Amino acid sequence: MIELGLLCVRALKFDGKKMDYIRDYPEPRTDEVLIKVRMAGICGTDLEILQGYMSYQGVLGHEFVGTVIKSKNKDLIGKRVVGEINVGCEKCDSCKAGMQRHCPNRTVLGILNRDGAFAEYLSLPEKNIHVIPDSISDEQAVFVEPVAAAFEIKEQVLLKPDWKVAIVGDGRLAQLIVSVLKTVCIDITCFGKHKRKLDRLEKLEVKTKIGVSHREYHNFDLVVEATGSNSGFLDTMKLVRPRGYVILKSTIVSRENLDLTPAVVNEITLVGSRCGPFRPAIEAIATGTIPVNDLVEEIYPLEKFKEAFENAMESNTLKILLKP
Amino acid sequence: MIELGLLCVRALKFDGKKMDYIRDYPEPRTDEVLIKVRMAGICGTDLEILQGYMSYQGVLGHEFVGTVIKSKNKDLIGKRVVGEINVGCEKCDSCKAGMQRHCPNRTVLGILNRDGAFAEYLSLPEKNIHVIPDSISDEQAVFVEPVAAAFEIKEQVLLKPDWKVAIVGDGRLAQLIVSVLKTVCIDITCFGKHKRKLDRLEKLEVKTKIGVSHREYHNFDLVVEATGSNSGFLDTMKLVRPRGYVILKSTIVSRENLDLTPAVVNEITLVGSRCGPFRPAIEAIATGTIPVNDLVEEIYPLEKFKEAFENAMESNTLKILLKP
Repeated sequence: MIELGLLCVRALKFDGKKMDYIRDYPEPRTDEVLIKVRMAGICGTDLEILQGYMSYQGVLGHEFVGTVIKSKNKDLIGKRVVGEINVGCEKCDSCKAGMQRHCPNRTVLGILNRDGAFAEYLSLPEKNIHVIPDSISDEQAVFVEPVAAAFEIKEQVLLKPDWKVAIVGDGRLAQLIVSVLKTVCIDITCFGKHKRKLDRLEKLEVKTKIGVSHREYHNFDLVVEATGSNSGFLDTMKLVRPRGYVILKSTIVSRENLDLTPAVVNEITLVGSRCGPFRPAIEAIATGTIPVNDLVEEIYPLEKFKEAFENAMESNTLKILLKP
Repeated sequence: MIELGLLCVRALKFDGKKMDYIRDYPEPRTDEVLIKVRMAGICGTDLEILQGYMSYQGVLGHEFVGTVIKSKNKDLIGKRVVGEINVGCEKCDSCKAGMQRHCPNRTVLGILNRDGAFAEYLSLPEKNIHVIPDSISDEQAVFVEPVAAAFEIKEQVLLKPDWKVAIVGDGRLAQLIVSVLKTVCIDITCFGKHKRKLDRLEKLEVKTKIGVSHREYHNFDLVVEATGSNSGFLDTMKLVRPRGYVILKSTIVSRENLDLTPAVVNEITLVGSRCGPFRPAIEAIATGTIPVNDLVEEIYPLEKFKEAFENAMESNTLKILLKP
């Protein structure tokens, strides 16, 4: 067993302005499960945090797989695990109703008052931990968190198999959302900007388009906005039919001149959607229902974080992983 | 029977910039039910149209009661009626699905390509017409259209009796929405700005507050935005609990710096809501379930429209009626 207090944790520390690789970051909390990070993924939210979203300072990273080093539950030690990222206070009404993800006092791994996965070690409460089967590789396991976020859509809206579905955006999350929606809906079109990313979706037997044309206006029962841009929202509102459904997946730092009048006139239902359930995500990755292997572009060691983030920020890049 | 072609219709004509009272407006369409307007109401949407909403030109007014003068269905002649304001093309997929209100080729009385009720006569298809029982006065009947718009909320969201409900806004529509929600929900708070309007709501046994305080943040299961202002939307997003519901009732000309990120993070469901079903509205007014008499501030003859609109624009005013 590792003696805590002797650990010199290597980590990427973000001070609100710049990120540094340091070798003497404080050790994680000792009252939680201690996890040695095996691999972590860079997400769009991380890139937004670097631009000021959530005013976060500390270690970023919330997509990870690791090995349990220390735990009160000895069965966990040595196990390969992923972890749900929201930690509720367990005292408030939200937590008592089982909505820890919406606890007003929550911490969120690498996003809100809790150091994240771009480090050698992290800690989480035992209740957040999910053991990963051997059939899932480290590279695949990193996708459990974003695949769960995609599965959240299925928890929120009763998808109908005959719906015409559009996804606006072709990035990391959009790719996963397409696969999740394909488990129910047949007629899916992805509106993107990047030929390379759309080519991957065509292999999944999804229609792809660059740009929204008049012919597609108000033609879709369900539209998922997963671009992270203002123009994405405008395109979304053009595509959705009257009384249709919109899933909002992007958190973006500012939205200017956003007009909700079309939502009122066309009686659209807009559903904000964030984190999701891990169990179906783990199962879908294990069974190959949600393919993720081909999303990985490159794996960088933690100290090469500058190159890793530069690559992740490029518009054509899908998933970049870090290996502490 | 009136000989059309001989009619010199008195009407308020809006040319996109100013409104004029004229005595020689063209007669209404002869292939529809011809209605002599008995009384019409000034709505918030009318005031927005005067500021450029919908880029509408023609006769405004969509809340009315009138007497049928001419109709292919002779049973209607002489009857006192109200009318649904959306007229579908009856050919498109929306119309075939019974969603004439969302027909992309629709006209809308006094709002879109169809002259409205601030005139001596108007016309509508027979299918839009509802006969009013004698127990409903003219002053009450004018409220059928906005009460129907309030009832639309009940069609869209399955209201739960134990929900904590907030209404943001205290104006004409907000007052009616409160009464409709009170038919299901017990715990209702109205956040307004005008003591006089809030006093009326207190008589309906609704809690009222001026301004939103921190204590109320994220405290409501359902919040209805019915203010027509940006600040109304911001207050709404403060009041609604995580995974709660927001009904969007305001169409406003511009919304600046609207940020939907809280809707994503808190997984809010936002439901745009416009026109609603006439039948329950007529019944609710007839039975007194939705009190409307005390909302009428003053009735002006059509030619006194300037005074009428000035009064309607005052922040403390509730409903102003016009009598052609």
